[in-house]
Amino acid sequence: MNSIDKLSEIFARFPGIGPRQAKRFVYFLLSRNGDYSSELVKAVQSLKKEIIQCEGCMRFFAGNGQVSKLCSICADDARDSSMLMIVPRDIDFEAIERSGSYKGYYFILGGVVPILEKEPEKRIRIKELEKRIKSSENLKEIILAMNANLDGENTAEFIKQKYQGIVLVFSTLGKGLSTGAELEYADPETLKNAFLHRTK
Amino acid sequence: MNSIDKLSEIFARFPGIGPRQAKRFVYFLLSRNGDYSSELVKAVQSLKKEIIQCEGCMRFFAGNGQVSKLCSICADDARDSSMLMIVPRDIDFEAIERSGSYKGYYFILGGVVPILEKEPEKRIRIKELEKRIKSSENLKEIILAMNANLDGENTAEFIKQKYQGIVLVFSTLGKGLSTGAELEYADPETLKNAFLHRTK
Amino acid sequence: MNSIDKLSEIFARFPGIGPRQAKRFVYFLLSRNGDYSSELVKAVQSLKKEIIQCEGCMRFFAGNGQVSKLCSICADDARDSSMLMIVPRDIDFEAIERSGSYKGYYFILGGVVPILEKEPEKRIRIKELEKRIKSSENLKEIILAMNANLDGENTAEFIKQKYQGIVLVFSTLGKGLSTGAELEYADPETLKNAFLHRTK
Amino acid sequence: MNSIDKLSEIFARFPGIGPRQAKRFVYFLLSRNGDYSSELVKAVQSLKKEIIQCEGCMRFFAGNGQVSKLCSICADDARDSSMLMIVPRDIDFEAIERSGSYKGYYFILGGVVPILEKEPEKRIRIKELEKRIKSSENLKEIILAMNANLDGENTAEFIKQKYQGIVLVFSTLGKGLSTGAELEYADPETLKNAFLHRTK
Repeated sequence: MNSIDKLSEIFARFPGIGPRQAKRFVYFLLSRNGDYSSELVKAVQSLKKEIIQCEGCMRFFAGNGQVSKLCSICADDARDSSMLMIVPRDIDFEAIERSGSYKGYYFILGGVVPILEKEPEKRIRIKELEKRIKSSENLKEIILAMNANLDGENTAEFIKQKYQGIVLVFSTLGKGLSTGAELEYADPETLKNAFLHRTK
Repeated sequence: MNSIDKLSEIFARFPGIGPRQAKRFVYFLLSRNGDYSSELVKAVQSLKKEIIQCEGCMRFFAGNGQVSKLCSICADDARDSSMLMIVPRDIDFEAIERSGSYKGYYFILGGVVPILEKEPEKRIRIKELEKRIKSSENLKEIILAMNANLDGENTAEFIKQKYQGIVLVFSTLGKGLSTGAELEYADPETLKNAFLHRTK
Repeated sequence: MNSIDKLSEIFARFPGIGPRQAKRFVYFLLSRNGDYSSELVKAVQSLKKEIIQCEGCMRFFAGNGQVSKLCSICADDARDSSMLMIVPRDIDFEAIERSGSYKGYYFILGGVVPILEKEPEKRIRIKELEKRIKSSENLKEIILAMNANLDGENTAEFIKQKYQGIVLVFSTLGKGLSTGAELEYADPETLKNAFLHRTK
Repeated sequence: MNSIDKLSEIFARFPGIGPRQAKRFVYFLLSRNGDYSSELVKAVQSLKKEIIQCEGCMRFFAGNGQVSKLCSICADDARDSSMLMIVPRDIDFEAIERSGSYKGYYFILGGVVPILEKEPEKRIRIKELEKRIKSSENLKEIILAMNANLDGENTAEFIKQKYQGIVLVFSTLGKGLSTGAELEYADPETLKNAFLHRTK
C-alpha cells in the first residue's frame, strides 16, 4: 500500500470520518508545504510526551513536568469533596466543566457499559473508580452523569449496583426539556419527566 | 386567477407548506376522482359544525350535539382540581395528555406572548384565563407548560406577574436532558439544569 | 370518528404529509375564523367545476367555459408540431415549461411504469397517448422526459418498444452534471455521461 | 498552549473539521495506545518522502524510488494523447478515473480561479499547464472538467481565452440530469441543458 492509501486508512479510523474525507485530509496535507506536516508530526509526538493521565480522575492533561500526577481540578482543595461526578469520557467532562454549574470532583470512566455486555470491567475503569471511591473521605454523593440513552442508563445501573452500601447517595442528571425544546415534538418520556421535575 | 392557482394559494398558507408543495396538493386532488374532493369538502364543513370550543379549557372538541359546552376532560370530576396546566396550543395539550403523566385540568392559551409584544392580550386568551382562574375553587398550582425558548419564557413570565397574589404556586416544566441527549452536544444551560435538577 | 380525526386522516393522504402535520392543518383551520374554511371549500369545489382535462395533452387546466377542450398550449398553432414531449405528471410539465427551452407540444402520461409492473396500461394513459400520436401529422420526434431513475428509464423503454416503427425518432433528456454539481461528489454514471456528452 | 489545544488547532484546519471534532480527534489519539500515534506520525512522515508530484499532470503519487518523475498514467503510452483533461484537484482526477469513461491524459490545475480574482496565476498551475500543452504533440482536444458552478465556469473561461489559437478544440463536461434527478426539482438551467443535449 502506498503512503497516500496508508495515511487515508489511518484517518478513516478517526471518529466520524469516512474513507472519502480521510483521502481529502491526505491531499490537504500534500497540498500544504512541508511545514504543516512537520507541525502535525511534532504536535502528535509532544501529545504523548506532555499529556499524562490524572491519578485522581483519569483524565488526560498537560503535565508540564510536574512531580504530582494530579490535574488542576483534582489538586484543587477548594472544590467540594462531598461530590464525585462520573462521566463517560474526557469530552463529557469538558462539556460539564464549561457549563460552570458543578464545583465537586470528577472521575472519567473511559467508556460506557453497553446493554448485554458480558465483561463490563473491560469497557470502563472500574478498578480505578473503586480506588478513587475508597480513598475519598468526605464523599456523600456520586452523580452518575451519563448520556440520556440506554447505554448511559445501563452504565449508571451497573455502577449503582456495584457500590450500593459503600456510597450513600447516587444521583443521576435531571431529565426534562432541553433548551429550545418544543412540547409538540417532545417524546412522552421527556414530557413526563418535565412534568414530574417541574420547578416551583 | 384560475382555481388551480387560487387553491394553491390557500394551501400555501397552511403551516409549513410552501408554494411548490401547495401546487402538488392541488394536482393530487385533481388526479383523484371526484369522491376524494367531496370527502375533503364534507370534512371541512362538518369540522366547523361539529367542533366547538370548550368553555373550560378553550380547546376544540367534537360537541356531538351535547348541551354542555365542556370537553371530556373539563367535565371529568375525577381529575385533580388543584392543578391547572396552561399550554400554548391544542397540539401541545395533545402531546402532554398522550404522555399520560398529568391528571389535572388544562387551559389552552391560544398562542404565546413574544418578547417586546406591546399588546399581549391580543395574542393569548387572557380574559378567558382570568375567568377560568377565578372560577376554580380548589386551585393550588398553575403549571406554565411552555416551549423551552424565549417566547415560552416570556409568556410564562407575563402570566406569573399578572396573577401573582391570586395564585399561590406557579410551576414551570422541568429542564434537563431530553431522551437521547448526549452530554457532549448539550448546551451549557441544559447541563446546568440537568445538574441542578438531578434526581437521587 | 370525530371530524378533527376525519379531516386529519384526509390531509394525511396528501403527498408528503404525515399524521402529525395533518393534525396541525386541522387545528390551523379551527384557529382561523370561518371565512378561511369557506374559502377552502369554495376553492376545492370550483376546482372540479372549472378545471378540465385537455384532450390533447391530458393536463388539467382552467376551462373558462370554452367550447374547445384544448389547453392554451395544445391550441397554439405556433408551436413546433414536429416534437412531442412526454412527461410523467402535470408538475413535470410545469417545470419544463418554466425553463423556457422547449417549443413543441406535450403529453402528460399521468404516472410511470415501475419495474416489473405487470399491467403498465393501468398506470399510464397509454390509449390516450396512442390516439395523440396517431393524430399527429408532422410528428418527427418524441422526447421521453422522465426522471433520471429506474422507473423513469423503464417507462421510457416501455413507450419506445410500443411505438417503435410508428415514431421515427425517440430521444431522452441529456444526462450530465446538474447545476452546482461537484466532480468529487458526482456518481460514476453521471461523470461518464458528462464526459460522453461534453460540449465543444 | 498545551499540546491538546495545539493539536486540536492543527486538526481544526483540516477541510470540513470544526474545533469540536478536532478536539475529539485528539482525545481519540490519547485514548488509543502509543502505537496508533506512532503509526500516524510514521505515515505522515513517509507521505512527504514517498509521494512525489508527477511532472506531467502535477498530481501526487507514490514514487517508489523510481528515476522517472511521471505517474503511471502519464507514463502509459497506450492512452489517447489527443485528449487532455484539466481538473481542479487530485480528488477530482480520482473521481473521473474511477468512472472509467476517459482514456486520455490529465492535468491537475491545483485549484480554481474565483470570479473577480486579480491574480489567477497564483491560484492555479498556469506555467506548468503551458509547458504541458506546448510539449503535447498530438493534442487535439482539451476537456475543461470543472465543477458546475460559477468558479468552475470562470476557470474554464480563463483557460479558454489564454490558449485560444494554440489549442484547436476546447470542450466542457456535459450538463443535464444527474443520476436520480427528478424533473420537478431540477432547476431551469439543468432542464434547459437536459433538453438541448437530449440523446436520440
